[in-house]
Amino acid sequence: MKHPVNYTLEKKEKHTGARLGKLETPNGTYETPMFMPVGTQATVKAMTPEELKAMGAGIILSNTYHLWLRPGSELIEEAGGLHEFMNWDQGILTDSGGFQVFSLADTREIKENGVHFKSHLDGSAQFLSPEKSIQIQNELGADVIMSFDECPPFNESYDYMKQSVARTTRWAERGLEAHENWDTQGLFGIVQGGGYKDLRIQHARDLRSMDFSGYSIGGLSVGETHQEMYEVLEYTTPELPEDKTRYLMGVGTPAALIESVIRGVDIFDCVLPTRIARNGTTMTSKGRLKVKNATYKKDWRPIDENCDCYTCRNYSRAYVRHLFNTDEILGVRLTSIHNLRFLTHLMEQIREAIRNDNLLDFKEAFFEEYGYNEPNARTF
Amino acid sequence: MKHPVNYTLEKKEKHTGARLGKLETPNGTYETPMFMPVGTQATVKAMTPEELKAMGAGIILSNTYHLWLRPGSELIEEAGGLHEFMNWDQGILTDSGGFQVFSLADTREIKENGVHFKSHLDGSAQFLSPEKSIQIQNELGADVIMSFDECPPFNESYDYMKQSVARTTRWAERGLEAHENWDTQGLFGIVQGGGYKDLRIQHARDLRSMDFSGYSIGGLSVGETHQEMYEVLEYTTPELPEDKTRYLMGVGTPAALIESVIRGVDIFDCVLPTRIARNGTTMTSKGRLKVKNATYKKDWRPIDENCDCYTCRNYSRAYVRHLFNTDEILGVRLTSIHNLRFLTHLMEQIREAIRNDNLLDFKEAFFEEYGYNEPNARTF
Repeated sequence: MKHPVNYTLEKKEKHTGARLGKLETPNGTYETPMFMPVGTQATVKAMTPEELKAMGAGIILSNTYHLWLRPGSELIEEAGGLHEFMNWDQGILTDSGGFQVFSLADTREIKENGVHFKSHLDGSAQFLSPEKSIQIQNELGADVIMSFDECPPFNESYDYMKQSVARTTRWAERGLEAHENWDTQGLFGIVQGGGYKDLRIQHARDLRSMDFSGYSIGGLSVGETHQEMYEVLEYTTPELPEDKTRYLMGVGTPAALIESVIRGVDIFDCVLPTRIARNGTTMTSKGRLKVKNATYKKDWRPIDENCDCYTCRNYSRAYVRHLFNTDEILGVRLTSIHNLRFLTHLMEQIREAIRNDNLLDFKEAFFEEYGYNEPNARTF
Repeated sequence: MKHPVNYTLEKKEKHTGARLGKLETPNGTYETPMFMPVGTQATVKAMTPEELKAMGAGIILSNTYHLWLRPGSELIEEAGGLHEFMNWDQGILTDSGGFQVFSLADTREIKENGVHFKSHLDGSAQFLSPEKSIQIQNELGADVIMSFDECPPFNESYDYMKQSVARTTRWAERGLEAHENWDTQGLFGIVQGGGYKDLRIQHARDLRSMDFSGYSIGGLSVGETHQEMYEVLEYTTPELPEDKTRYLMGVGTPAALIESVIRGVDIFDCVLPTRIARNGTTMTSKGRLKVKNATYKKDWRPIDENCDCYTCRNYSRAYVRHLFNTDEILGVRLTSIHNLRFLTHLMEQIREAIRNDNLLDFKEAFFEEYGYNEPNARTF
């Protein structure tokens, strides 16, 4: 079958095998490795589409669960789809809703057919199934959509995880059946299995045997250590096809992005850059900088002297700090722009390092400057 | 004396005498009548400078009282002044702080020397005088600054108002003495006098005899009716020099802007467009539209079909309504852009009508379409 979403592997880095590639979608072709900003409710928080494009953002992610409950996927379909609704003419990826059902909903009951739960908004009874998730995502019309999965805690028991993964495989088959827009939307399968090597490998092989447009790695960045996550990647990515995209869901710290690319991942998403931005915290080439702190009251330097973003080209730390101190919306806008550009720029640097076969040197230098090599370094 | 801020009267409208002119400042020359967006805390709420320029904003206003208390005028002077601090290279006007001392501060004691009051932020004891207000404004470095005034309630007794106005005249003389930047900052006097015709006229004449760069009309838009305000303008503006700018402080409803231009006013400021925007209320050519209302859930039209703003060119009412429904910052950004553009566009239309000597016809048509002619019409 011809897929609407395709991946082309262009080069593997000499020392690590990290992949440089191109992800082709109905709304543009994007260089990978790539970081995708998160627009949970059909808006990347505080940003316009033009601002995202100016910082080199490619595909953005939006959340099936949230949009289904509010404003409703039928309404968005009536608007002409998510691209039209939110004025975004580049790629969009929607998740399956599975993660939110397991992390946000108030109560849930998992059956073979699907999941009964109560909405976190109004407590209303809801039901999400593989077919329903695909139907919602068909209505939303993103370029890349996800198969409905169960996302159990990383430390769930082996027995539970084994039967959960088997069910997610059956759900994947049902999702493939249910998908109606094979000409315009690429469907990805999601590999689960927690920290159990044999389950991860088995699940990857099972999903690989189906005709997905790409593969996601789920159930990570949910509380396990970075080291545990890297180990999962090390035995999982070799099981995935070389000619399909590998998407690590929910990852966005600078260290984890670099380490995961080294372990064969192509694309990422995370709320981290916009979430910490709203709290006045920024990522810089020299590590975290909490610009709202009083320390920066008279600091006339930009947030990051090595950054080319709109914020750093035009405003001082002192001004941004003043905006946070006075609860001004522009403060959140400026830190959000900076943090998102920091990650899109990091991905540009990673791609360049793959091209030059010096990714490990880049990592070493980046970690040193960011402060990751210091004792008790913060993870972001 | 050569003033750094000058006004050139270019034309008077044939039927009303409404003035078309140019206001020259050290940071640009602007066509009048003009509406000035308010940037209380060195930011027009939710906007960047580029967005303000794109909608045709000229001069913006910032508040002396707020900036003095936080982050401090000395800090802004150290930054290189307000323009540099907030990245705004067009004109800035600062008010005197008088209005805020009388409307925001917790307790106050007015003496000949100045006003003792408690900060609304932390209750700390503060003192503002004509000299102090000018010193702060000299440190902030706006293009147009204001003489320190007392702003009594509109219905204050005649006897109190009479002695208050006399004191504001003495404060005006002290402000002229204190002003240090005659080459870069134009100082305006503020006419007070409530609704007492003889006091307004006397105060206008007293201030006119001093060498101010322009004249403000204060103590209006503080609770009196529109009709009362228009009457004050009718007997006050004829007392002001034709070759200086007339600035009506705190006015920004569409009706009041048109009526006040007809009565000889050149420039205006008001928080209204950005304040109601944050509450999901917009001004359109067909009147007020509360876009956050459920009515607009599936309304695919722009907020105003006759508007050329970024919001109306790119987003539906349904999308903006969704953003408000989900508390997304982009919602406030989009309504703020729209409302500010609505007023800058209204001023363009007013200038065009003066040029064409059909301001009354324009008013009639605008009022009819906006809904002002309907019974119990809202004033904004």
